[in-house]
Amino acid sequence: MAQINENFLKLQAGYLFPEIAKRTRAFKQQNPSAKIISMGIGDVTQPIAPAIIEEMHRAVEEMADKETLKGYGPEQGYDFLRKTIIVNDYNSNGVELGIEEIFISDGTKCDTGNIQEIFGVDNVIAVTDPVYPVYVDTNVMAGRTGKAGQNGQYEGIVYMPCTAENYFVPELPERKVDIIYLCFPNNPTGAVAKGEQLRMWVDYARENRSIIFFDAAYEAYIADTNIPHSIYEIPGAKDAAIEFRSFSKTAGFTGLRCAFTVVPKQLKAYTKDGQAVEVNAIWNRRHCTKFNGASYISQAAAAAVYTPQGKEQVRRIINIYMANASQIRKSLTRLGYKVYGGINAPYIWLKTPGRTTSWEFFDILLKQANVVGTPGVGFGPSGEGYLRLTAFGLPENVKEAMRRFERIKI
Amino acid sequence: MAQINENFLKLQAGYLFPEIAKRTRAFKQQNPSAKIISMGIGDVTQPIAPAIIEEMHRAVEEMADKETLKGYGPEQGYDFLRKTIIVNDYNSNGVELGIEEIFISDGTKCDTGNIQEIFGVDNVIAVTDPVYPVYVDTNVMAGRTGKAGQNGQYEGIVYMPCTAENYFVPELPERKVDIIYLCFPNNPTGAVAKGEQLRMWVDYARENRSIIFFDAAYEAYIADTNIPHSIYEIPGAKDAAIEFRSFSKTAGFTGLRCAFTVVPKQLKAYTKDGQAVEVNAIWNRRHCTKFNGASYISQAAAAAVYTPQGKEQVRRIINIYMANASQIRKSLTRLGYKVYGGINAPYIWLKTPGRTTSWEFFDILLKQANVVGTPGVGFGPSGEGYLRLTAFGLPENVKEAMRRFERIKI
Repeated sequence: MAQINENFLKLQAGYLFPEIAKRTRAFKQQNPSAKIISMGIGDVTQPIAPAIIEEMHRAVEEMADKETLKGYGPEQGYDFLRKTIIVNDYNSNGVELGIEEIFISDGTKCDTGNIQEIFGVDNVIAVTDPVYPVYVDTNVMAGRTGKAGQNGQYEGIVYMPCTAENYFVPELPERKVDIIYLCFPNNPTGAVAKGEQLRMWVDYARENRSIIFFDAAYEAYIADTNIPHSIYEIPGAKDAAIEFRSFSKTAGFTGLRCAFTVVPKQLKAYTKDGQAVEVNAIWNRRHCTKFNGASYISQAAAAAVYTPQGKEQVRRIINIYMANASQIRKSLTRLGYKVYGGINAPYIWLKTPGRTTSWEFFDILLKQANVVGTPGVGFGPSGEGYLRLTAFGLPENVKEAMRRFERIKI
Repeated sequence: MAQINENFLKLQAGYLFPEIAKRTRAFKQQNPSAKIISMGIGDVTQPIAPAIIEEMHRAVEEMADKETLKGYGPEQGYDFLRKTIIVNDYNSNGVELGIEEIFISDGTKCDTGNIQEIFGVDNVIAVTDPVYPVYVDTNVMAGRTGKAGQNGQYEGIVYMPCTAENYFVPELPERKVDIIYLCFPNNPTGAVAKGEQLRMWVDYARENRSIIFFDAAYEAYIADTNIPHSIYEIPGAKDAAIEFRSFSKTAGFTGLRCAFTVVPKQLKAYTKDGQAVEVNAIWNRRHCTKFNGASYISQAAAAAVYTPQGKEQVRRIINIYMANASQIRKSLTRLGYKVYGGINAPYIWLKTPGRTTSWEFFDILLKQANVVGTPGVGFGPSGEGYLRLTAFGLPENVKEAMRRFERIKI
């Protein structure tokens, strides 16, 4: 008799986005003429930069000729891409990495979901609250948790509240933890971590032989020069952290699928009896066994992000989104709202006015302004009383949405 | 302290292909003028068909325009692709499937590697011997096995020998098993299963509430009209099997990455206390949590495989490879070799002459003919005394390789 993995039965129904869709649909049916503006989903709206398009056409043509056809590539990705990543994303910030420390993949969702697999089930996992649900759900599937409680949090996971009081950067946990998920610039709060805050975490991990999973998918949005783009800018971090990066938000690759993970050679995990094991070798084995490389077209496209033209064009697109973020911050602040994020991140974390809950304000915004946000409580209990707005919309839609905020009455 | 998943430490070093590379390299160094022909790796050599190239250029152009840009797609794949798969691959063979039963992915290696994850660790797994190593290694990683023995087989896995005596189609195991991996047309033996052989397995699975993982990545190479292309052509198979298909060998997508998995809605697995659970829903949850859809360019390309032009062009390429296979069979048979496969599959399973072992004949072939094959024993003990040759080479190379076989002296 084939037995199911019963850990999957502990998962709560994916409630947040289906519920948003349901309420939006119901509103549309009652108000068919309303022009709804979505600021809810974190997907890009600007087309792929011309230098990248050109490179993809070139790569497609290579596939049409048996002399230049690319079949199976290296599972870890092509060296041309791994090399340019090291030079442009790391060496430029004073970080040295070897080519074998870079693993190209088809997405950071996949990588942050898969990485837990190479670690034992007995590790104690720490996540922030609010949190990107993939970190949690993949640990539930692996059997590292008990059941979910009333507030949606699972037994056995250490949740670290991120609130306005701690500037949405978690404090060290009281209980000792083995694996720590950090995401900066943060989704959903838009918060960033300063060097000294990351250093505290790196020191903690080194002292406790814990490992940090550092999700830097939004690093391209960092504007302040004193905010680290990579955790490896912190001394000792190569002994303490795995870093995840993506081309999805950097260069609009959400439909093209390319990302990468950095696993330093010197990073160690341990057997139950304390023997050190190279994490890089184990991840390499996992990657080569369960993955067959990202599409060559996508890897060629990713390499074009680092050409002089690619860099300039991609920067211009990021500037469009960041101008949106700035516009949202300015407009909402002027209207008396308290807003966080949106300076070094494409997310704005809006404090809901008065005593309105996340979902109450979601409904008000939908009905009075026909604007869709994402209720903060959907990311965890500490998100209650917040709404996430994304800066990825078209500028004209963002401007219109901000005008409509003016009519809101609580 | 971060603990490693110690199951990974049970994995044996990936010995087969590195060893082939090492011996080939050593030979080249000693014989720098030798022109080596590889018939070892199962990668394609014909360029992507023009109809698919054209469609990829069109899809790239869509990405250049904000009106047609494709960001995040559905994790399960675009409906345009899922629909055309059902019509062309299934309805045409009398199989009805719903759109929610098709999951688009970036590769069958990934899918056959990931599928075990949604099943409990206590399931007894059965695989053929010889076997595609991914089926085994992913179960080792998940903790469903003990250690490997001297012959490379892991404790706890049921290995089903596939030999000339049973026409390389396994017999029902004596021990009751919960999950059965079958691959037809088979890699590495090139064997196919007839309808009545598959029916025996489907009946077994239904009686025992087991599940068959049916890898049909090479179905496009089936030439005999009485050989099933899909396990769902067998009555009752929707209660008993998950099917895996790929565009890699069908249309040369090894570098483009697109495949799909069929999980029938009616397929059930069970909790420990015997409660039935819909496997489709659990796989959907896994797929949406750990995967973010295949590249839009690759999905558009895959859809082009089913256009009238695409079909005809892809068929022409398959015919080239099958003409290679036929040439290999004919030449080797004429030279007195015993060969299997190569009629409904792109693999030829060559019995090594006399008492030579797989590796001995590998060395003879390399030295005397400068041709590289894959030692059958690398796929399992029952592969001893065989060598796998692939039909994916360029026709001129295959012809030259066959000429060189004539000089071999044992």
